[in-house]
Amino acid sequence: MYRKASYGSELDQLIQLLSKLPGLGPRSARRAALQLIKRKDSVMRPLSTALAEVAEHVNPCTTCGNLDTTDPCHICDSEKRDMSTICVIEDVADLWALERAGAFRGLYHVIGGTLSALDGVGPDDLNIFTLIERALADSVQEVIIATNATVDGQTTAHYITDRLKDCDVAITRLAHGVPVGGELDYLDDGTLTAALNSRRPF
Amino acid sequence: MYRKASYGSELDQLIQLLSKLPGLGPRSARRAALQLIKRKDSVMRPLSTALAEVAEHVNPCTTCGNLDTTDPCHICDSEKRDMSTICVIEDVADLWALERAGAFRGLYHVIGGTLSALDGVGPDDLNIFTLIERALADSVQEVIIATNATVDGQTTAHYITDRLKDCDVAITRLAHGVPVGGELDYLDDGTLTAALNSRRPF
Repeated sequence: MYRKASYGSELDQLIQLLSKLPGLGPRSARRAALQLIKRKDSVMRPLSTALAEVAEHVNPCTTCGNLDTTDPCHICDSEKRDMSTICVIEDVADLWALERAGAFRGLYHVIGGTLSALDGVGPDDLNIFTLIERALADSVQEVIIATNATVDGQTTAHYITDRLKDCDVAITRLAHGVPVGGELDYLDDGTLTAALNSRRPF
Repeated sequence: MYRKASYGSELDQLIQLLSKLPGLGPRSARRAALQLIKRKDSVMRPLSTALAEVAEHVNPCTTCGNLDTTDPCHICDSEKRDMSTICVIEDVADLWALERAGAFRGLYHVIGGTLSALDGVGPDDLNIFTLIERALADSVQEVIIATNATVDGQTTAHYITDRLKDCDVAITRLAHGVPVGGELDYLDDGTLTAALNSRRPF
């Protein structure tokens, strides 16, 4: 017999909202709420403030789609970045991953998802038109398509390549192959085939 | 090569605070932050408000230790509860679990943890003194000790029993046995032994 208990409306509301975070279910939301109450000054109040601050001040960059307090964002606005290369990614999380790797010094373009017939996501739902506009600028020489290596990601990559063919830019994509530190035994056939086909002189 | 990227100080701060929630690490905190930004009005701002509200208004009940906006809490204050029985639990989460089961109509007493020599938790760190004070009242006839069935929980149960022996109350504890819906094959020896020893006529 499971009955939904009431912990008081404020707490109920908090637990319900916490359980909407990815990775937290109802049980872990309750644990989180209790832990927050135990650490009111060190975590709970600062978290409340941080949420309000970010909700107020952080918005997508109108040029590239990155999230920042300024528009254009600090990457689009930086003089240290290579203006001739645009890397196309699905999501801001992918931009963060590339920035963490620190291997790319160009600009980004977040398209905001993938084409998906099942989910009813068409080209107009993604920021592809603005990408073409940017690619038409004289300064841009290369567009690197770094969508995920999933079926939807690759479909989107092909669509973007097609739309960019009238722009005077080189279109490249990330290499497929063996992940650094990966063991061959654990890799799928597709990755191994791609790694073999793209083998390079030692 | 892993470099800590900066996502802008507001976002960094939010991600850092989110990663302190139980069940969220740095990666899931980043995912949570991105999802929150996508749902600013439906989740992010309400969550900020809920956190501030709970931090401001929810406090432990000075009688039983339950968390509520009122003091005494709605359980201590309710006329429908059985004032003659006090159930001793470790944590507010345990109180919530018992309330969800809906099988107990008495009052609670949250001691706030267990005795633990390793973690340096002694009797003075728990709300045991206030429990004894409550148990001395004429109205109280039974104290049910419902600490967890762990070593520390049982040690604490024995200590509390010892301290309550001068109070004129019956001291009981939760039954050990086969969990409802549980399979014998998966149970540990201790539980099976307890279930056998406490067998009851059919």
